[in-house]
Amino acid sequence: MSATILTIGDELLIGQVNDTNAGWLARGLAALGLRVRQLVTVADDLAEIDSALGQAIKSSSVVVMTGGLGPTADDITREAIARHIGTPLRYHADAWQIVEQYFTRSGRAVPTTCEHLAQVPRGFEPLANPEGTAPGLWCAGETAIAVLPGVPREMKTMFRNEVAPRLRTLYSKGTVVHRTLCTAGLGETAIQQRLRKESYLFGQDLTLAYLPRPGQVRLRITATTARAARRLPDVERHLRSVLGAYVYGQDGDSLAGVVGAMLRRRHMTIATAESCTGGLVAHVLTNIPGASDYVVGAVVAYANMAKQQLLDVARSDLATHGAVSAEVAETMAHAARDRFSASVGVAITGIAGPGGGSVDKPVGTTWIACALAGTCEVKSYRFGATRESNKVRSTVAALDLVRRMLLKNAT
Amino acid sequence: MSATILTIGDELLIGQVNDTNAGWLARGLAALGLRVRQLVTVADDLAEIDSALGQAIKSSSVVVMTGGLGPTADDITREAIARHIGTPLRYHADAWQIVEQYFTRSGRAVPTTCEHLAQVPRGFEPLANPEGTAPGLWCAGETAIAVLPGVPREMKTMFRNEVAPRLRTLYSKGTVVHRTLCTAGLGETAIQQRLRKESYLFGQDLTLAYLPRPGQVRLRITATTARAARRLPDVERHLRSVLGAYVYGQDGDSLAGVVGAMLRRRHMTIATAESCTGGLVAHVLTNIPGASDYVVGAVVAYANMAKQQLLDVARSDLATHGAVSAEVAETMAHAARDRFSASVGVAITGIAGPGGGSVDKPVGTTWIACALAGTCEVKSYRFGATRESNKVRSTVAALDLVRRMLLKNAT
Repeated sequence: MSATILTIGDELLIGQVNDTNAGWLARGLAALGLRVRQLVTVADDLAEIDSALGQAIKSSSVVVMTGGLGPTADDITREAIARHIGTPLRYHADAWQIVEQYFTRSGRAVPTTCEHLAQVPRGFEPLANPEGTAPGLWCAGETAIAVLPGVPREMKTMFRNEVAPRLRTLYSKGTVVHRTLCTAGLGETAIQQRLRKESYLFGQDLTLAYLPRPGQVRLRITATTARAARRLPDVERHLRSVLGAYVYGQDGDSLAGVVGAMLRRRHMTIATAESCTGGLVAHVLTNIPGASDYVVGAVVAYANMAKQQLLDVARSDLATHGAVSAEVAETMAHAARDRFSASVGVAITGIAGPGGGSVDKPVGTTWIACALAGTCEVKSYRFGATRESNKVRSTVAALDLVRRMLLKNAT
Repeated sequence: MSATILTIGDELLIGQVNDTNAGWLARGLAALGLRVRQLVTVADDLAEIDSALGQAIKSSSVVVMTGGLGPTADDITREAIARHIGTPLRYHADAWQIVEQYFTRSGRAVPTTCEHLAQVPRGFEPLANPEGTAPGLWCAGETAIAVLPGVPREMKTMFRNEVAPRLRTLYSKGTVVHRTLCTAGLGETAIQQRLRKESYLFGQDLTLAYLPRPGQVRLRITATTARAARRLPDVERHLRSVLGAYVYGQDGDSLAGVVGAMLRRRHMTIATAESCTGGLVAHVLTNIPGASDYVVGAVVAYANMAKQQLLDVARSDLATHGAVSAEVAETMAHAARDRFSASVGVAITGIAGPGGGSVDKPVGTTWIACALAGTCEVKSYRFGATRESNKVRSTVAALDLVRRMLLKNAT
């Protein structure tokens, strides 16, 4: 069963407001087992709504519309639907009651400007709106059509209370199951090469999608039939075994959250010593609620003098190896650990760009070190040409190095 | 001239990712004077892309597509376009060069899985992608078609560098002039109250839009006729005089960039001492290229012990006033300045939440101090209940306090 989501509003088309209704509804419809095939946004315009609605009805079993139901002059969704199905709007007693109840709750009579909210196209029934003035609309024809206000709070309550139960009754057969594996340390192309031999696992009803972010790739497995859903756990296990420790989590997991949970489980603490990342590793670690249980602190040593004074880097190392070197990274990692009396010290030194590169050490050259108990690992990376992306990729690599070392250091 | 934005990606249709590309592009196209008539999202599916592209071409002068250009098997936008225009994909030497350059920068050969990224539908030219692997596509036919990757960073750079200039050449008649004033320190409502008497300045062809972000509001003045464009500088001057020092910049300015430029002009340096912001202030400051000229470093002292050992906070002050207090903020600011021998020290201590709040000091309570030459200013704030938003608002407030103190400290 396929669905189209049609959001209506001038403000969406000039980009003044980002549409969050469509994504929310897409999740809601997917959870009901419907395949959403198109999200469409059009202006508060009779002809535009008419044409988009026609397309949607032709191609989908379900159409959910939001926006343009309110009392002001630019709200014309009701009229557009009536025009599309070729019947006039008619006064509907239940709709009137919904409008009246809203005003009664706040001790007022229905203003004349709101009287037309009780007008309903023939074949539609009104839907209660406990959060606002305008009733929604519902029609369970060959294509089921639900029409909701654009105000997110009203829309969500009405979808949950009124639309979802009706759709469940109509289409209670579908099955859509997702599982996302979160990976770090391999690019999209490298993962694809590793999974080349597993392509036989996937097909029409069990698909694999690559969702790349800087330094990370998420792999989403989707099953669209009950049979495929039963196979999904096996396929997931198989991908995990091929990718091994590159998989750090699943679904909504974040690398900082996973590292944080590992530290907490081990009763360990962490401190960072950052140069090119400029505090981003500490920022990402402390975005996790409760991070104060294991994050002790950080030193951002941007200037070489700060590296010497706060992180024990020897002037001779800076002169011999340069600030971006294995030696300096290692010293910084140990210093972070010592200064903050932390279990883990992680250090990042690199050339974020756009300036500062050389032939030997082009922009993107980065050294990362992680000190833990008696050991210290140091790795070099060559990221790209963009400052912000280099900071993000260095941060992901640093967190991933910590994760890898904690994995070896059993709970 | 009307435009359709077509975003492609399975992840958008199941609501796993909220589409922010469409809104961003809508603003970009509106700024060029184009009327965006429809936003459409479809899956990575040949038939769906084919049908949506057909609709878009029929109804618009410009179609901008994003997504499905990458190297993996589910990226089929290139094929869908070729199928739609009825020509096979062909190897394009310029496209190959774009792909090759990307891998050369990181010292690698083009993997075989990426070779097909150099395939271009006949009639299209490839667009350079400085941030990623996949070239974009452009065709200036009866309907102009631009195809960009779905990764927001790549998409934005390519739209700015490649697509916008080409569209400007094609449709250079529209007069739409924008000027944005960047403010910090006042909420949307407070600004609205201050500007209530100036509403007579605006009308049909000269409009004012409020674009709020956490801790900041940007005010966009838009002129849509030549006459209004001539009035714009006067209106801008007037708003600036009403809002005074709350305006920190214009158009693409960032608070960190403005503070950085002020420091550079004064040959001054800065260091931060951060608790609740966890390194975010240092991260934001070091996002500006060339920040190493004035950012010396930072200490993130998340644990109280770290505040004592690295930032000279007295155990007695922690016991008497608590870590979130004027006294501790002031000590931290001085310590940041001293430890790093910086001209300016700025310190932030607060309760980011969700835990750690009390009746006296609820979540969101924050103290910020800035030490400069002989003076130190300390201010208290009460932000909201959300951890990430509190970190951002504290960071904006800290940078704004630095800016205000630098303003008093003339060049």
